[in-house]
Amino acid sequence: MKHVQLSRSVGVTVTPFDEKGYPDYGEIQNQTEAFCTCPTEAILPCASTGEFVKLDLPERAEVLRSVMLANRGRKQLIAGTCDISAMRVIRSIEAAKRYDYDACVVCPPFYYGLTQEAVLDFYREVCAAAEGMPIVAYHVPFFTTGIEIPTFLKLMEIPNLVGMKDSSAVMKRIAHLCDLAKRERPEFVLYTGTDDCLLPALTAGCHGNMTALSASMPWHIDAIYQAFDKGDLQAAMAAQRAILPILRECDSLPFPIGYKLLAKAQGMRVEDPTAEKEIAVYKRIQAMLKVGV
Amino acid sequence: MKHVQLSRSVGVTVTPFDEKGYPDYGEIQNQTEAFCTCPTEAILPCASTGEFVKLDLPERAEVLRSVMLANRGRKQLIAGTCDISAMRVIRSIEAAKRYDYDACVVCPPFYYGLTQEAVLDFYREVCAAAEGMPIVAYHVPFFTTGIEIPTFLKLMEIPNLVGMKDSSAVMKRIAHLCDLAKRERPEFVLYTGTDDCLLPALTAGCHGNMTALSASMPWHIDAIYQAFDKGDLQAAMAAQRAILPILRECDSLPFPIGYKLLAKAQGMRVEDPTAEKEIAVYKRIQAMLKVGV
Amino acid sequence: MKHVQLSRSVGVTVTPFDEKGYPDYGEIQNQTEAFCTCPTEAILPCASTGEFVKLDLPERAEVLRSVMLANRGRKQLIAGTCDISAMRVIRSIEAAKRYDYDACVVCPPFYYGLTQEAVLDFYREVCAAAEGMPIVAYHVPFFTTGIEIPTFLKLMEIPNLVGMKDSSAVMKRIAHLCDLAKRERPEFVLYTGTDDCLLPALTAGCHGNMTALSASMPWHIDAIYQAFDKGDLQAAMAAQRAILPILRECDSLPFPIGYKLLAKAQGMRVEDPTAEKEIAVYKRIQAMLKVGV
Amino acid sequence: MKHVQLSRSVGVTVTPFDEKGYPDYGEIQNQTEAFCTCPTEAILPCASTGEFVKLDLPERAEVLRSVMLANRGRKQLIAGTCDISAMRVIRSIEAAKRYDYDACVVCPPFYYGLTQEAVLDFYREVCAAAEGMPIVAYHVPFFTTGIEIPTFLKLMEIPNLVGMKDSSAVMKRIAHLCDLAKRERPEFVLYTGTDDCLLPALTAGCHGNMTALSASMPWHIDAIYQAFDKGDLQAAMAAQRAILPILRECDSLPFPIGYKLLAKAQGMRVEDPTAEKEIAVYKRIQAMLKVGV
Repeated sequence: MKHVQLSRSVGVTVTPFDEKGYPDYGEIQNQTEAFCTCPTEAILPCASTGEFVKLDLPERAEVLRSVMLANRGRKQLIAGTCDISAMRVIRSIEAAKRYDYDACVVCPPFYYGLTQEAVLDFYREVCAAAEGMPIVAYHVPFFTTGIEIPTFLKLMEIPNLVGMKDSSAVMKRIAHLCDLAKRERPEFVLYTGTDDCLLPALTAGCHGNMTALSASMPWHIDAIYQAFDKGDLQAAMAAQRAILPILRECDSLPFPIGYKLLAKAQGMRVEDPTAEKEIAVYKRIQAMLKVGV
Repeated sequence: MKHVQLSRSVGVTVTPFDEKGYPDYGEIQNQTEAFCTCPTEAILPCASTGEFVKLDLPERAEVLRSVMLANRGRKQLIAGTCDISAMRVIRSIEAAKRYDYDACVVCPPFYYGLTQEAVLDFYREVCAAAEGMPIVAYHVPFFTTGIEIPTFLKLMEIPNLVGMKDSSAVMKRIAHLCDLAKRERPEFVLYTGTDDCLLPALTAGCHGNMTALSASMPWHIDAIYQAFDKGDLQAAMAAQRAILPILRECDSLPFPIGYKLLAKAQGMRVEDPTAEKEIAVYKRIQAMLKVGV
Repeated sequence: MKHVQLSRSVGVTVTPFDEKGYPDYGEIQNQTEAFCTCPTEAILPCASTGEFVKLDLPERAEVLRSVMLANRGRKQLIAGTCDISAMRVIRSIEAAKRYDYDACVVCPPFYYGLTQEAVLDFYREVCAAAEGMPIVAYHVPFFTTGIEIPTFLKLMEIPNLVGMKDSSAVMKRIAHLCDLAKRERPEFVLYTGTDDCLLPALTAGCHGNMTALSASMPWHIDAIYQAFDKGDLQAAMAAQRAILPILRECDSLPFPIGYKLLAKAQGMRVEDPTAEKEIAVYKRIQAMLKVGV
Repeated sequence: MKHVQLSRSVGVTVTPFDEKGYPDYGEIQNQTEAFCTCPTEAILPCASTGEFVKLDLPERAEVLRSVMLANRGRKQLIAGTCDISAMRVIRSIEAAKRYDYDACVVCPPFYYGLTQEAVLDFYREVCAAAEGMPIVAYHVPFFTTGIEIPTFLKLMEIPNLVGMKDSSAVMKRIAHLCDLAKRERPEFVLYTGTDDCLLPALTAGCHGNMTALSASMPWHIDAIYQAFDKGDLQAAMAAQRAILPILRECDSLPFPIGYKLLAKAQGMRVEDPTAEKEIAVYKRIQAMLKVGV
C-alpha cells in the first residue's frame, strides 16, 4: 500500500459547469492553481460539494485529471469516489490511481438502504479492489446509509481503510470514534465534514477537516488551526465563530448551491444564480466578504 | 403527448447479470418471452427491483431495447428511469422513447436530500424534456426524498405527469391521494408498489400495482384482481393472504436479493445465491412453490 | 381471565373540559348516553383522542366511572390506560377493573425511547399486574416507541394480551401482523386506529377499528361494515371515500383538536375553538355535515 | 423576575427508590449533603436522569423539598419540571417556587408530536404562568418534539425564558444557537446535556453543562472546566477523553439505568442491578473507578 500521511486540512471544491452543463475543465485548472497558493494542505474534488452526481464516470475522471495537471505535485490529492454501486466506485478509484491521487473518499452506496452487514461487505469489496489505494470511509447519514459504531470497529481492521470522514456533526459520536480509533489503531484518522464545528471536532480528537470552506475560505480555516496549535483558545473560538454567519447563508439554499455561490463570490467562474432567493443569498455573501468576515 | 391508457397490473422485472457482472441480454429476452404468456398487462424493466443502480446508461438502454425486441408489441412497456440527476433521468427517457416505451417511472433524484420545492422543479424539468412521454412519479421514501401531498397536488398540473406509484404502503396517505386525484384529475392513476397490500390498495382507490410479484408470480396477483373485479371479497382476501409467506422470505434479505431468488426459483437464469442465509431463503422459497402458495 | 369477545367497532371518545380545565363529567355522561343509541359496539374513553395526558390519575378514574355509570351495561367498555410508566399504567388498569371495564388499551410508555426488549418487559409486567384483565397492545409510532414484528410475536405468548391496535396505517405491516396472528393464535385480534383506511384494513385481515369516527360519525363507519359484510365492495369503497374530506379537515389541526371540533359539530359540549384557524376548520366541518358527507 | 446568574456546571441527579417503588427521601438528603462538598455549582433533581416519569406530582414536589432542605442554601437549585401537559408542568413549577428553586428546566410536552407553533405556544403559556421563575427550555429530540432554530429565536423574546439545554449533541446546531444567542440576547445561556462532548460544547460557545456526571463524577467534570479556563487545551482534551469509557458503559443499558449504576458505584444507595447485563455493567464500572478513570 501507498504510505501516505493524510493531510489535516482538506479543501472540498465545487465543480464549475459551462452553459451546456459540462464541467468547465479550464476553470477547474484555474481553481486548482489558485488553491495551490493557500494554506490548505490537500484538495478533494468530486465530493458532495463537487456535485459528483452530475458527472459521468469519464467526466469525473477528467475532472480528477485536470486537478492533477494543474496541481503539479504541490498539494496532496484526495478523490471523491462515492457512487451508487461498488462497481462504479471501483471504476472511479481506478481513475484516481491513474492520476496518482493519494487517497479516495467513499460513502456507502446510496438509493437502497443497506444493512450494516452490507455496508461492511461493500467496504471490504471496494478496499480489496482498490489494491493499496488508501480509502477514507465517509459517514454522511443525511444522504445515504450511515456507518454505525460496531461497523466502524470492523472497518478499522481493513488495512487500506485509513480514516473516516464524519459529516453528522454529532459530537458525542465523533468523540467516541476518535477515542476508539486511538485505542485500536492510533494512525487511523478522523475528519469532520462540518465547517461550523471544526474547533469542537478538533477538541473531540479529530485529525482534521474535509470541508468546503477549506477550499473557499482557506485562510479563515487556517486561523482556527493556528490558534488551536498555539493553544490560544479564545482566538480559536473567535475564528470559529467568525465563519458562522456566512455558513448560515450557504445553508439557507439547497445543498450545495450556497457553497457554489460562496466560491463564485471569492472569484471562481461558476454558474450564475438565477432564482430570486439565490441572488439574494449571493448578494449577502458578497456584502459579508466585503466588510470582512 | 402519446395517448395511452396505462395498464393496471405492471410486472417489475429483475435483471439477470452474467458472471462478469454485465446484464445477460439473452436471458432478458427469454424472461420477456415468458412474461408475454402471463396475465400481467405491462412490463417494467430497470426499476429498483431491476437494480438499475448497477447499470450504466448504455447498459440500461440496451436492457430496454432487449425487452422491446422480445416483446414484439404484446405487452405495454414502461421504463424505469430513476437516477441521481435530472440530466441522467432525461437521457434514460430518451432511450425509452427510442424503443417506443409507453411511459417512464421517475423518482426524485437521490443522494442529496431535496426540498419539496426542488422535487417539484425536478419533475417540471424532466417532464418538459420528456416532450409528451407519459411520466409516472414515484414515491419511495425509504430510498429517496418523498413526494408530499401538497407537492402531489402541484404535480397533477403537469400534463404528461400521468400517474404516481407509491411504495410507502401508508394506506392513509394512499387513500387521500386517490381521493384527491379523482376530484382534481380523474384520469390520473395511482399505483401501489407493495405486493403485500395490493387488495387493500385497490379498495383505497388505486388503479393498479407495479410490483415484483406481477412479474414473478403473475397468476397469483391476477387471482386477486379477478376476485376483486367479481366483488368476491373472501376470495380476494384469501388470494392476497396466500402470497404473504413468500413475501416474508423475500424481505428477509437485503432488497432486492430475495426477489431475484424468487425469480430464479420460478425458472429464470439469475445469479446463484452465495451467502449461507441466501441459500437458506432460496430453499425455503423453492419448497413453498413446490407445495403451492 | 375474564372471557370476553372484543367488539369490532370501538368508538374513541373525546373528553370535554369545563372552563377551569377539569373534565366535564356531566357532559361525559350525556355523550355516553348518546353513544348508546348508535351502532358502534364499544366505547373507549381516555385514549389519545381523549387527551389522557391532561388527566390526573384520579380524574382519569372518574372519567372511566362516569362512562360506566351512564352506559348501564349497554355497550362494551374499553379503557385507555396509556401512561409514562408501568406503575401509572397499572394504577389506571386497577381503576378500569374497579369500574368493570372489559379490556384496556396500553401503548409502550413514552418519553424515554425504549429498546424492543424493554417494550416486551413492560408488557409482561403490566399484563401480570393486570391479573386477568384483557390487554390490547397499542402500536402508535408517532407518539412513542413502536412494537416491531419480532416483539409482536413474543407478545402473543402473553395470555391476557388479547389483541393489538395499530395506528401506523402501514398496511404492509398490518397485513403481516394479521396473517401471523391467524397462524399463531387465531383469536388474537388486530384493530386499525386509522379511520381513513378502515376498509383496506379489514381486507388486510383486521378484526375491527378503534377510532374517533366510530364515536363521532358512527353511522358512517357502520355503513362501511355493513357493505363489507354483504360483500358489496363498491358500496364499501364509496362509504370509505365519503369520510375522507372531513378527516382532512380534522387532521389539518394539531391532534386531536380537529376531532374535538367534529364532536362539537355533532352536538357535544366541548371547548369552543379560539384560534382563527380552528374556527375556520370548525365552520368547514359544520358545512360538510350540513350538506351530508 | 428573580435575578439569578445561572451556574455553569449543573449536576443532574438520579432518584433512589425504595423497595416498594417510592422515592427514598432519606437517601436523597444524603445524596444532596454529599453533593454539597463537590465542585459542581448547582443541583438538578427530577430531570430525565432522575426518572421524573416515575414520580407523581406530590412525590416530585417532595423530592424537590428534600433536596432543598438538605442543601441549606449551599448550591444553586434547578428543578426538572418536564411533563406531558402544560398544566402539569405549571404545577411542578409552583412546587419549585414554593421550595425556592432558582430555575426550572422544561421540555416540550411529550406523547403527541407538536408543531413548532404549538411548542412556542406551550412555552408562552408556561412562562407566563411561571410569573418570574426563570425557565430553561430543553431540546431533547430523542424523547420529545425538538425546538427548531426559528422557534428558538422566538423563544428568546420571552423575558423569563433565560436559557436552553440542548441534549442533541449536534454541534453544528449548538454552535449556531450560541452565536445567535450572543447576538440577540447576550445573557441568554446555552447548556449541553451531553457529558461526552462538554469540552467541544464549551468551545462552540456553551455556557455550561447540565449532565449526570456533574453529579456522579463532579471532579472529573471540574477538571475539564479548570483546564478550559486556564486555556490548557491538552489537559482539557485529556480530561474530556478520560470519561468516555465509563460513559460507554453507562450508555450500553437503556437510559438511565447505567447512570444509576454509576451513582451506586460512587456510593449512593440506589436499586440493585438485577438483570445479568446490568450486573456485568455495574462490575465493569466498579473496576474502572477502582483503577481510576
